[in-house]
Amino acid sequence: MSLLFKHLRVHQVFGANTDVGKTILTTALVRASAFTKSGVFYLKPVSTGSMDVADDEHIKRYTAPWSDHVFTECLYRYQEPVSPHLAVKIAAEESGQSQPIPTDETFVTSVANHIRECASKTKRTSDMYVETAGGVHSPTLSGTTQVEAYRPLFLPTVLIGDSKLGGISTTISAYESLILRGFIVDSILLFRDAYYRNWEYLQEYFADRGVHVASVEAPPEPLANPSENFVSTQRYYDSLLVPTAEDGILSALQHLDQCHVKRLKEIDSMPRRTLDSIWWPFVQHGLFKEEKDVTVIDSAYSDYFSIRTPSASASSQTSLLQPQFDGSASWWTQTFGHTHSSLTLAAARAAGRYGHVMFPRATNLPALKLAETLIQDGPGKGWASRAFFSDDGSTGMEVALKMALRAFSKRHNLDRASQKTLGVLGLKGSYHGDTIGVMDACEEDGVYTCEWHNAKGFWLEPPSVSIQNGEVTVTVPDSITKNGVKTYEMQSLSWTYDIQGRLSSELATIYRNYLQATLESLKNKDNIRLGALVLEPLVMGAGGMIFVDPLFQRVLIDVVRNSDSSATPSHSSWSGLPVIFDEVFVGLHRIGMESTSPLLGVSPDISVNAKILTGGLVPLAVTLASNSIFEVFLSDNKADALLHGHSYTAHAIGCEVANETLSLIKKVTSSADYVYAQQRWQPNPGEASKVWSLWDPNFIDAVSKMEKVSDVMTLGTVLAIKLKDDNAGYTSHSAEAVFRTILSPEEDNKTLSSSPGGAPFGVHYRTLGNVAYFMSSLTTSGATLRTLEDKIWKALAGQ
Amino acid sequence: MSLLFKHLRVHQVFGANTDVGKTILTTALVRASAFTKSGVFYLKPVSTGSMDVADDEHIKRYTAPWSDHVFTECLYRYQEPVSPHLAVKIAAEESGQSQPIPTDETFVTSVANHIRECASKTKRTSDMYVETAGGVHSPTLSGTTQVEAYRPLFLPTVLIGDSKLGGISTTISAYESLILRGFIVDSILLFRDAYYRNWEYLQEYFADRGVHVASVEAPPEPLANPSENFVSTQRYYDSLLVPTAEDGILSALQHLDQCHVKRLKEIDSMPRRTLDSIWWPFVQHGLFKEEKDVTVIDSAYSDYFSIRTPSASASSQTSLLQPQFDGSASWWTQTFGHTHSSLTLAAARAAGRYGHVMFPRATNLPALKLAETLIQDGPGKGWASRAFFSDDGSTGMEVALKMALRAFSKRHNLDRASQKTLGVLGLKGSYHGDTIGVMDACEEDGVYTCEWHNAKGFWLEPPSVSIQNGEVTVTVPDSITKNGVKTYEMQSLSWTYDIQGRLSSELATIYRNYLQATLESLKNKDNIRLGALVLEPLVMGAGGMIFVDPLFQRVLIDVVRNSDSSATPSHSSWSGLPVIFDEVFVGLHRIGMESTSPLLGVSPDISVNAKILTGGLVPLAVTLASNSIFEVFLSDNKADALLHGHSYTAHAIGCEVANETLSLIKKVTSSADYVYAQQRWQPNPGEASKVWSLWDPNFIDAVSKMEKVSDVMTLGTVLAIKLKDDNAGYTSHSAEAVFRTILSPEEDNKTLSSSPGGAPFGVHYRTLGNVAYFMSSLTTSGATLRTLEDKIWKALAGQ
Repeated sequence: MSLLFKHLRVHQVFGANTDVGKTILTTALVRASAFTKSGVFYLKPVSTGSMDVADDEHIKRYTAPWSDHVFTECLYRYQEPVSPHLAVKIAAEESGQSQPIPTDETFVTSVANHIRECASKTKRTSDMYVETAGGVHSPTLSGTTQVEAYRPLFLPTVLIGDSKLGGISTTISAYESLILRGFIVDSILLFRDAYYRNWEYLQEYFADRGVHVASVEAPPEPLANPSENFVSTQRYYDSLLVPTAEDGILSALQHLDQCHVKRLKEIDSMPRRTLDSIWWPFVQHGLFKEEKDVTVIDSAYSDYFSIRTPSASASSQTSLLQPQFDGSASWWTQTFGHTHSSLTLAAARAAGRYGHVMFPRATNLPALKLAETLIQDGPGKGWASRAFFSDDGSTGMEVALKMALRAFSKRHNLDRASQKTLGVLGLKGSYHGDTIGVMDACEEDGVYTCEWHNAKGFWLEPPSVSIQNGEVTVTVPDSITKNGVKTYEMQSLSWTYDIQGRLSSELATIYRNYLQATLESLKNKDNIRLGALVLEPLVMGAGGMIFVDPLFQRVLIDVVRNSDSSATPSHSSWSGLPVIFDEVFVGLHRIGMESTSPLLGVSPDISVNAKILTGGLVPLAVTLASNSIFEVFLSDNKADALLHGHSYTAHAIGCEVANETLSLIKKVTSSADYVYAQQRWQPNPGEASKVWSLWDPNFIDAVSKMEKVSDVMTLGTVLAIKLKDDNAGYTSHSAEAVFRTILSPEEDNKTLSSSPGGAPFGVHYRTLGNVAYFMSSLTTSGATLRTLEDKIWKALAGQ
Repeated sequence: MSLLFKHLRVHQVFGANTDVGKTILTTALVRASAFTKSGVFYLKPVSTGSMDVADDEHIKRYTAPWSDHVFTECLYRYQEPVSPHLAVKIAAEESGQSQPIPTDETFVTSVANHIRECASKTKRTSDMYVETAGGVHSPTLSGTTQVEAYRPLFLPTVLIGDSKLGGISTTISAYESLILRGFIVDSILLFRDAYYRNWEYLQEYFADRGVHVASVEAPPEPLANPSENFVSTQRYYDSLLVPTAEDGILSALQHLDQCHVKRLKEIDSMPRRTLDSIWWPFVQHGLFKEEKDVTVIDSAYSDYFSIRTPSASASSQTSLLQPQFDGSASWWTQTFGHTHSSLTLAAARAAGRYGHVMFPRATNLPALKLAETLIQDGPGKGWASRAFFSDDGSTGMEVALKMALRAFSKRHNLDRASQKTLGVLGLKGSYHGDTIGVMDACEEDGVYTCEWHNAKGFWLEPPSVSIQNGEVTVTVPDSITKNGVKTYEMQSLSWTYDIQGRLSSELATIYRNYLQATLESLKNKDNIRLGALVLEPLVMGAGGMIFVDPLFQRVLIDVVRNSDSSATPSHSSWSGLPVIFDEVFVGLHRIGMESTSPLLGVSPDISVNAKILTGGLVPLAVTLASNSIFEVFLSDNKADALLHGHSYTAHAIGCEVANETLSLIKKVTSSADYVYAQQRWQPNPGEASKVWSLWDPNFIDAVSKMEKVSDVMTLGTVLAIKLKDDNAGYTSHSAEAVFRTILSPEEDNKTLSSSPGGAPFGVHYRTLGNVAYFMSSLTTSGATLRTLEDKIWKALAGQ
C-alpha cells in the first residue's frame, strides 16, 4: 500500500513508451537531486536488455561529482531486450532451470521493502526515483501491466513524454491510463525536438488540465569512441543543470519538491478542515471533535484504505500512510475491493458514450441490459417482470412501498383516509433506509431519528439464529412461546437453513399457530390495517446483524399469503399482502447467495437491490416487481402511473458498472477460492450446504466459546459477534471499546502482512451497539481473512 | 452526430501510434472487403507526409483486381510528414497565404457529408473505412486530438495495434483513450512480430475484456526497385487473403460484419425489449405500449442524443441514427452537454484512486474540497458552515427537513405528538422530490402520488412573473388581493428582479400585510403548527415552471423571520422558522445565477443543491446548513445526532465530478458567449441586469404575442411557454400536442444544421401539462439556440 515519507520524496517514473529517454531524464533528475539534496536513491525494480551500461550503472557514472550520496539498486535484471514478462521467460529457458516468476504480491513487496529500507537509512531530506520498465502498460514479470502492478504503492509519478512523431498521442494516452488508476501525475518531462515540437503542444494541452510539463534539450548522438562519448554525455548532463533553462530539469525538480510539500501539508490539514466543514452521516459530532478522531483516507486499493498514520508526525522515518483493512466493506458496498480497474473502465465507457441521458420513455443499452439480467438471470428470475431504477436502497424501498400500498389499496378500494393509515407488517429490528417514508415502515424505538417519524404497522419479534458456545441455536422470544424466551439447539447450520426439511417440525407449528393468531387479532384492531409485508430476508443488518430464523420468515409469508379471503386473485397475482423483500444488504452474494428466494422457497412480489449492485462504486438501486404489481398502475390516465423518478434515474454509469459487477460476480463465485470456502462449510463430505461463509468454521466455533462473547453468527462475507453487555442497544459503545486495539497495526512491523506491499495493517470496523461486525469483499484473500481472525481473536482475548 | 447505415458498414481506423502499419492494414481490410462486397469506400480525411505514394493511391494500386468498386478520397492533404496541426501551419507558412484552419465543426461536417454521400451512392451491401491520422490522440487540423474530433460521429472502430517493442503499452493505452470517449472497439488488428510477440500477449489480455484481436504477418522489407517492390507488396497482400490464416484479415472482416449485424439487430430490438422489462419513472405505461413510443438513445454528445431514426427501416439509405436536441437537459441535469471528457476523466480519476470509501468519521480529498468550495466560494458563501452529502435532490431535501424540524422542535421543546404533526410553510405548486417525507412538505392535490402522502403544513398561493403579450407582468392571486386576480405591469424584467428597489413599492406593502395576517391567523389554528419555511426560490420547476414574484418570497422570509416572539435567538441564529432553500433545480447557474440568495438579498438557514452539481453525470446532493442548525444536533449523546446516511455517502466519483463541474462553470460563466448573452438582456447600455437569459429577448417578446401563447418566461437556460388551455394542469397533454412536430428533423435535409456533423435534428422536449419548457446546457451554442427558437416558433405558428 501507499508509502509516503516526510524526509524522503519518492517519485515513480513512468514512460509514455519504450525508448523515450526515461533513463536519461531520470539520470538528469537524479543528478539535479544530488546537486541539492543530502541523499538520492534510484531504484530500477526490473531491468531488461544489454545496454552498454545498465541503467543503474549509467546513473552511477554520470552523477560522479556526487556519487557518494547516490544509491542505486536493481532488483530483477535480465539480458534480453524485451518486455519483462518475456525476458523472465527467456532467461528461464536459457538457464534451463524453471525459476519461479515472482507474483505481483512478491514483486510489490520487494519494491516496498526496498523503499522502506531507503527511508530508514536516510535521516535528512532525500529524494528517490523508482523507474519502471517500458511504457505504462508494458507487462511486468508476472504479465500484469506496470500501472496495475505498481498501483498498490500509489507513488506520485513523473511521466516521461514522447518527443517523436506520434508522441503527442502516446503521451496523452499514457497519461490517461495513469489517471484511470488514480495516479497523481506531478510532472510530464520530455525532450525538445525542434521538428515535431511535441513539447509545445503538450505544454499547452496539459496547462489546461493543471499538469506541469517540463522539457529539456535532447542528448547528443552517441559517439563511437567510448571516452569521447563519456565526455560528450557528461557535458550534456552538465548543461541541463544550468539554472537559466526556464522550464528545464531544475524547475522540474523544484516543482516536484513543491508537490511533495503541498501533499504533506494537505494530508496534515485534512483532519482540521474536515472537522470545520463536514457534517458526517450517523455521527455525533459532539463526541468527535479532535483531529485524531478523523481517519484521512488518502487512497484505497483492494480491501484496504491507505490512511494517514495517526502517529505520523512523531516519528519521521516511518511512512505517513499505512494500510487499514476496510472491515465494514465501506458500509457494506465493496464487492471486489476498491479501485478494481474493470469497474473504473466500465464507468469511463458509459461516461464517454452517454454521460447521463433521459430515461422516461427512452432507453439505453446499459439500463436495458441491467434490467434484463436482473429479471432473467438474477434475483428476479422466475417471478419479476419489471425493473424500476432509483438512486439508493432507501429510495428503492420508497418505490417498493408505493407499489405495494397502491396494489393493496386498489384491490380493496380504500378511500384516501384509509390509504394514509395503512400499515406494514414487519419484524422488530427492521431497517429500510433513512428517508422518512421507509422509516415509517419501521418501528419507532427510543432512538427515533426524525420528528416526522410516524411508524405505521405492526412489527413481530422474530426468533433468531446464532452460534452460542459452539452450538447453532434458535432463540424464540417470549411473545411467541408465551412462556419465556426459549432456545432450540439445531443439528447444524446447514440443517437450520434447510427450510423444506423444517416445515414439518414442531417449531414450524408453533410459528404457524402464533402467526395465524396474531394476524387474526390484528384484523380486529381499529388502528391497524396492514397493506404490505416488508422483510429483510435472513439478516436484519442495521438493526444489529440479527440473523432471523429463516423458518419463521417462510411461515410468515405462507400464513400471510394463505390468509387472503377478501379477494380471489388469479394464481399469478399477489395474495394476502404484497410481499416486499428488502435485499439491499443481503442480496447479490453478500451472505453467500444471489438472492434469498431459493433458500426460503418463496418469491416476493417486489424486491430491492442496491449496495453490491454497483460493486461498491456509485449509488444505484433497482426495485423489481412482478407483473401483477405492474398492472395495478396501468390505465389510460397519467395520474394512475407510478409518479416517482429521480433526475439521474438509470444513469448510464451506474448501470454499466452494475452490468460489469454482475458479470464479474459470476466469475468470482465459480472461482477455486470460493469453492474451497464453500467446501469447508459442508456438513459432511459430499453433502452440499446451502449456507456457508468465507470465515473459518473452526474460528467461528472457538469465538462462540469465548468469555466476552454472547454469541456469534456468519453467512457469506459477514461475521457478527455479539458481546455480553447489560447495557446493549444502538447507543452502546461496548463493541467499539473491545476492538479499539485492532484499529492500528500491531507494533511488530518486521513481519510482513498480507496487505499489498506487506506493511502491517490496522482494521477499520463498525459496530452496532454491543455487536461488532466484520465484512470482507467477495474476493478477500484467505491470507487476509486468517490475519483478521487472528486480530479479532486477540482483541477478544484481551491480548 | 452518429452515422449508421444498414447497407453500408462503416468502421473508423485508429492507430495505437504513428507508424504501426495503419495504412497497410487498412489496405488489407479494403482488399478483403472488395473481395466480398459490392462496393468499398475508403476515406482518409487528413493526409500528411510525402510518401512515395499517398495512402489513398496506395489503396487504389493494391486493390487492382477490384478497383472499379473501390472508391477512395482524401479531404485535406499536406506534404509535411508531421502531425496535422503542424502540417496545416507549415503549409500556410510556405504558401505565404493565411489559409483558414478548418474548425472542428467544419471538419467533422465535411467527413460526415462524405460518408452520407457514399451511403447514398451505394445501393447494395458495402463497407467503408475512415482512416485517422497518427495515434488516437494525435492532433487534428485545429489541434483537437483525433479521438475528440471524431467523437461526434461515434463510428465503431478498429484499433491498429503496435507490434514493436513497447507496443503492448501503447496499444492498451490507446484502447483506454478510446474507451474514455465511449467508442465501440470492434477489433484490434496488428502485425505478428516473432521477436516481441505482442499479438500473443494482447490476444490474451483482450480476450479477458471481450475484445477481438486479429494479427497478420508483417509486410516484407520495401525493395529499392519500384517494380520489384510492387510485385513483392502485391504478393504480400495476396497472401493475407488466403483463407487458412485462422485469425487473419478474413476472420477480422467476418468479425466486423458480425459486429455490424449485431449492432443493427440490437438497436432494432431495444424498443420491444424495453417495453417488456423496464418500468419507467413518471410514465403511464398504458399510454405507451408500442415500439414507436420508445426513444432509443444509442449515444449522446454535446447537447444532442443520437437516437434510432423512427422511420429507419423504411428507407435504407438514410442513417439509422439521427441527432435529437436534449431539450430538457435530461431532466435539468446537463451542464456542459453530454460526455464532456473532463468530467469523464474526473470520474475515472476518483474511481482509480478511491472507488467509494467509507465517510462517517473519515475524510477524502474530493469530498472535503467540494464541501469547502460550496461553503467558502459557492452557494453557501457567507452563511453556511457545514455540508451534508446524500444521493439526490429528494434525499437532500429529506435531510434539510430533518434539520429544520429538529431545530424548531428543540427550541420549542415539542413533545413527540406535536413533532409528528409539525407542518411546513410553503407555496402552492412546490415540489421537493418523490420520497414520501418531502412529498409531505408539499400539498396534496388531485394527483396525489402515494397512499401515504399526508401533506403537513400550509401553502400560500404565490404571485407570479411572466411575459404576456410583450409586457413583464406580475399576476397576484385573489387570495392576496381579496378582490379577484390582479395583474401588475412591470417596467422591465431587470426592474422586476431588483428586490431592494421594490421593497418600498405598493405591492410590497400588500404582500407584507397579507402575509402578516395569514401567519397570525395560522397561529390560531389548532391543526397547523409550522416548523419550517420551505421554498424553491424564484422558480418552482416541476410544479409547472412557475416564476414566483421574487418580491413575494423576500417579504415572506422577512415576515417569518420578524415574527419570532417565542424565542430570543442570538443574531447569528435562525429566527421565526428555519428557512430552507430548495435550489436543486434553480441552483448553480441553471437560471443564470449561482445561488438565488444575492438576488433575494437574504440567505437561507439550510439549502440543497443537486442536478447541475455533478455536471449531469452521476447522482449526488449536498445539504448546506448554517452553524446554528448544526449546533442543534451537538451533544454527547449519539441519539441526538443526525442519524441519516446512505451507503454511498459522499462517493468519491460524485464529489470529484462535482469539483470539476464547479471549476468548469467558473470558466464558462466568464466566457465571451456568456457575457454576450448577458449584455443582450441589459435594460440600457452600460446598465447591468441581475437577470438574463441565453434565449433571445426579441424571440421571447415575439412568442409572448402569439395567439396560442398565454405567457412566456425565461431566466438563464430555461424557457417556459404556457399555452392557452381551458383544461390545464399536470395531466393535460396540450403542450405536448402542440410541439409534437419538432420531435423529428425537418424534411429538408439539404441544409446543414448546427448539430455536430450537420445532420438535421429533432428536439426532445418535456411538458408539464399546458406548459412546454426548453432547457439548454450552459454551453449550448448561439447557432443551436437560434435554430431551436426557429423550430419553436414554427410549431407555435402551426407551420
